[in-house]
Amino acid sequence: MEVIDGFPSTSNDEYPLNTTRLIEAAARNFPDREIVSGTGEDQFRYTYSESYERIQRLANALEELGVEAGDRVGVLAWNDHRHYESYFGIPGTGAVILQLNLRLHPDRLKYVLNHSEPRFLVIDESLLEVAENVAPDVTSIEGFVVMTDNELDEVKTDLEPTYSYEDLLAEAEPEYDWPYIDETSAYSACYTTGTTGRPKGVYYSHRNIYLHTMQLANSIGISHGDSVAQITPMFHGQGWGLAYAATYAGAKLAFPGRYRAENPEPLVDLINDENTTVTNGAPAIFMPMLDYIRNLDDNPDWNGLQMMSGATEPPLDMIRGYKELTEAEIVHAYGATETTPLVAINFIKPSLEEELSKEEKLDMRRKQGLTVPGVETKIVDPNTGEELPHDGDSVGEILIRGPWVVSSYYDDDRTEESFTDDGFWKSGDAGTIDEDGYLKITDRIKDVIKSGGEWISSVDMENLLIEHPDVSDACVVGLEHPEWEERPFALVEVEDEVDREELDEILSQRFADWQLPDEIEFTNEIPKTSVGKNNKKSIREQNRGRYKS
Amino acid sequence: MEVIDGFPSTSNDEYPLNTTRLIEAAARNFPDREIVSGTGEDQFRYTYSESYERIQRLANALEELGVEAGDRVGVLAWNDHRHYESYFGIPGTGAVILQLNLRLHPDRLKYVLNHSEPRFLVIDESLLEVAENVAPDVTSIEGFVVMTDNELDEVKTDLEPTYSYEDLLAEAEPEYDWPYIDETSAYSACYTTGTTGRPKGVYYSHRNIYLHTMQLANSIGISHGDSVAQITPMFHGQGWGLAYAATYAGAKLAFPGRYRAENPEPLVDLINDENTTVTNGAPAIFMPMLDYIRNLDDNPDWNGLQMMSGATEPPLDMIRGYKELTEAEIVHAYGATETTPLVAINFIKPSLEEELSKEEKLDMRRKQGLTVPGVETKIVDPNTGEELPHDGDSVGEILIRGPWVVSSYYDDDRTEESFTDDGFWKSGDAGTIDEDGYLKITDRIKDVIKSGGEWISSVDMENLLIEHPDVSDACVVGLEHPEWEERPFALVEVEDEVDREELDEILSQRFADWQLPDEIEFTNEIPKTSVGKNNKKSIREQNRGRYKS
Repeated sequence: MEVIDGFPSTSNDEYPLNTTRLIEAAARNFPDREIVSGTGEDQFRYTYSESYERIQRLANALEELGVEAGDRVGVLAWNDHRHYESYFGIPGTGAVILQLNLRLHPDRLKYVLNHSEPRFLVIDESLLEVAENVAPDVTSIEGFVVMTDNELDEVKTDLEPTYSYEDLLAEAEPEYDWPYIDETSAYSACYTTGTTGRPKGVYYSHRNIYLHTMQLANSIGISHGDSVAQITPMFHGQGWGLAYAATYAGAKLAFPGRYRAENPEPLVDLINDENTTVTNGAPAIFMPMLDYIRNLDDNPDWNGLQMMSGATEPPLDMIRGYKELTEAEIVHAYGATETTPLVAINFIKPSLEEELSKEEKLDMRRKQGLTVPGVETKIVDPNTGEELPHDGDSVGEILIRGPWVVSSYYDDDRTEESFTDDGFWKSGDAGTIDEDGYLKITDRIKDVIKSGGEWISSVDMENLLIEHPDVSDACVVGLEHPEWEERPFALVEVEDEVDREELDEILSQRFADWQLPDEIEFTNEIPKTSVGKNNKKSIREQNRGRYKS
Repeated sequence: MEVIDGFPSTSNDEYPLNTTRLIEAAARNFPDREIVSGTGEDQFRYTYSESYERIQRLANALEELGVEAGDRVGVLAWNDHRHYESYFGIPGTGAVILQLNLRLHPDRLKYVLNHSEPRFLVIDESLLEVAENVAPDVTSIEGFVVMTDNELDEVKTDLEPTYSYEDLLAEAEPEYDWPYIDETSAYSACYTTGTTGRPKGVYYSHRNIYLHTMQLANSIGISHGDSVAQITPMFHGQGWGLAYAATYAGAKLAFPGRYRAENPEPLVDLINDENTTVTNGAPAIFMPMLDYIRNLDDNPDWNGLQMMSGATEPPLDMIRGYKELTEAEIVHAYGATETTPLVAINFIKPSLEEELSKEEKLDMRRKQGLTVPGVETKIVDPNTGEELPHDGDSVGEILIRGPWVVSSYYDDDRTEESFTDDGFWKSGDAGTIDEDGYLKITDRIKDVIKSGGEWISSVDMENLLIEHPDVSDACVVGLEHPEWEERPFALVEVEDEVDREELDEILSQRFADWQLPDEIEFTNEIPKTSVGKNNKKSIREQNRGRYKS
């Protein structure tokens, strides 16, 4: 992008935005504010002041191990206080915290490690096996620091050399002289986990994280009076930045430790016990929590709780369910690893507050929301690159640019195809922007059905099909067509076949006749990918040629 | 300061923080949100969307006039919508908005203009005389843009050439293609108005203003639900940044237009009528407003209103008065032109909320508060430069550093004495920091009384002396002493003399016997400076040698 020069300023513009300032401020202004880690009997509580001392010990310990500015240090951990300490202790020295997805396939994890070349891994004891599966094929790693309450000689592992996180901290000095780090230096490395292709390396700068933290705190309105529960995995784009925003504001901070969607009770208890006012997660965890609450004798009172929901569009039932049972508000936010992630957040703006009915507001809340200040979003025709109007109808690819949006992938030849010349990231999402500025994702670009020069949203069609009471799931793909380029094909999961007419009637709520699927096929089970999503690629392949004859 | 390099990031770190993004976001997300300008019959209302169009017209008009990136454009105006438009319209082009203090002595104003060399002045019609007094001695100015509702040929002035602000806007295009400006380029120029010496030029960068805006919004907790009234003069360090924070958040925004402390009714009405939730000002205006409210039949209900109070320590009576009569909260904040200004803000942190009594909390609210995240403050011995402990007792000079604190003065040889080698600004304020992190200004360094190696606060002594019911004002200075270096001397304004013992008794609440003034003199009127402050310099001179004999 072209940048012009003006008149020189007298500001201290060389003063770098470093993440160390965030924890320093919390320890200075809110030394007694609590941090809660884990649930149940193993729950651990301490304060920002105590955490900050351990963070300084960690920084000293890393230096003792030989870690230098610019080195990568990997972390494999649950959402707990030690993981939190690594958020500041590692990058505060000038090193890069490499966030490792503990659910990644070993081949992918190996790729990530060999691409990022960490010198050390910091691993929760319960995750040693994940590291053991890949470590022999990663030559850069010089040592493994084990996060555990046990003595090191009780820890069983083939990895070597190993160090005890707690021993290292105990032996290290409690004060650390933080360097000032060039703000464009990497704070962390996160790798995307697209369903296809190699993971892509996103290396967030200190500046990026600092600015995103300020914006997230502003967008949610976090203050020192809040109590925040970090449910989104902390290795997922740094847990979407919520722990930083809480630290920055001096809010109480709770980490659930290890949890499973099959047993949401500890998460519900944590929110109750800590009087949580802000939390984050995805429908994949919020839905099971809601189901659990539905079966309780007494509904919890979560009035005032904001539940930041990302990853996928929140189902209407979920938004309504939380509101009716607990008074909690689902706040949908949109972003991706490439965007740190905050791009848009959904709240009902004052001018719409009176205009919309209660039902319209609930429906509105499913949209991705308003683009936050500092970020630019636009929708463009993916073929011509031409910007499309904000009319709520024109569907195009969402392009995103801003100070916490990356402009390249680390050492990756896919950079060129993924960004525009002027620094917009091509999100791969298809969507609209309405007159009120609300962003709505309608599809992934690759799943959009291109028919006769128009686009048909496969996601919207699927969402309508599953409104039929006998349909348990639906998958819509575009198949090649000699005349129309593509035509929609729907695979519908049912126990017994349903009348095509009934489905067409439902679809006609939002689709014109010419947009309806040429064929609808019924099945007992839609093919799934390894992560449980409908396998559109395989469905497309199995039905190739169907419309060509 | 030393800055180290780490590993390269993939973030878009070249994307500049520009103030244009603030108004763009407001126009995009909150087009219908109201901006109110003026009071009474001349009150004018429009929206962010309408304002943004006029801002774009202004930018086009300036380009038509020949204004280029880097040029300075001066503004002489009250707090109104046109002044607000200039906040974005001028710097958005890459030019620098030069904020002119309309109460400055003509000689000072001339100095400022000749030092900053603006090419154009944008002037409210009612302030033409201010410009006429100085313009003949300023050669850089090529033209004068008059902000007025009148036709240009009705405007009487010797200045030439003149342009009508409204005509220029009417003729200009409604859309402007904003450049991206290097973030270290100057957004605005403000000159300090110390009581002695030439004004010093502070040139804030776009980055500086943008970061300060985010921090201020976070510190106050402004959201789109707020209604903000900008009372602090907008030429005073950009009105302490409140209008930006409101814009950034999409809050309703009200400007009172021209107002006078002698007639606070319009300000009180504005806060009532617009359901204001955040405002800013100083005791100099908040006190008359409170006096006016005291005489009303019904107290207004200002529950939920935060009144940001700066400039001087808020009197206890004022804090208590607003709380008891209106439920409004006085929020004391600390800073200076050199710090944009937000350095510290006073709120009672959660850990003290239960610990302190109601009276202790009121008293606590007079402190300057907690240093906000991103800014570093420390207190040092002004002789040795050694950092002093945060014990609430050790008094030292307050040094300040951060991304919205300047590190030089524009073209000024006083830069060297005003900053440390590692970029801290020497505030000239003497103060303490307590164990809880609260900053307390005790004096100006130059007014501190240095006695036998210890410091005695002249301000604290003055505040105690005026607690005596017969004392209307007090001024304490240090006079040279052969043995003690300096000893305190008090000049006390009374109608009839007061017993020295009564004053000593009051002073003994906080001062040891050895700290009490050697002499207290009574007077009917303490000598004042031109801006109405006690003239310590002249009092010191008049009493030189008093303790030497």
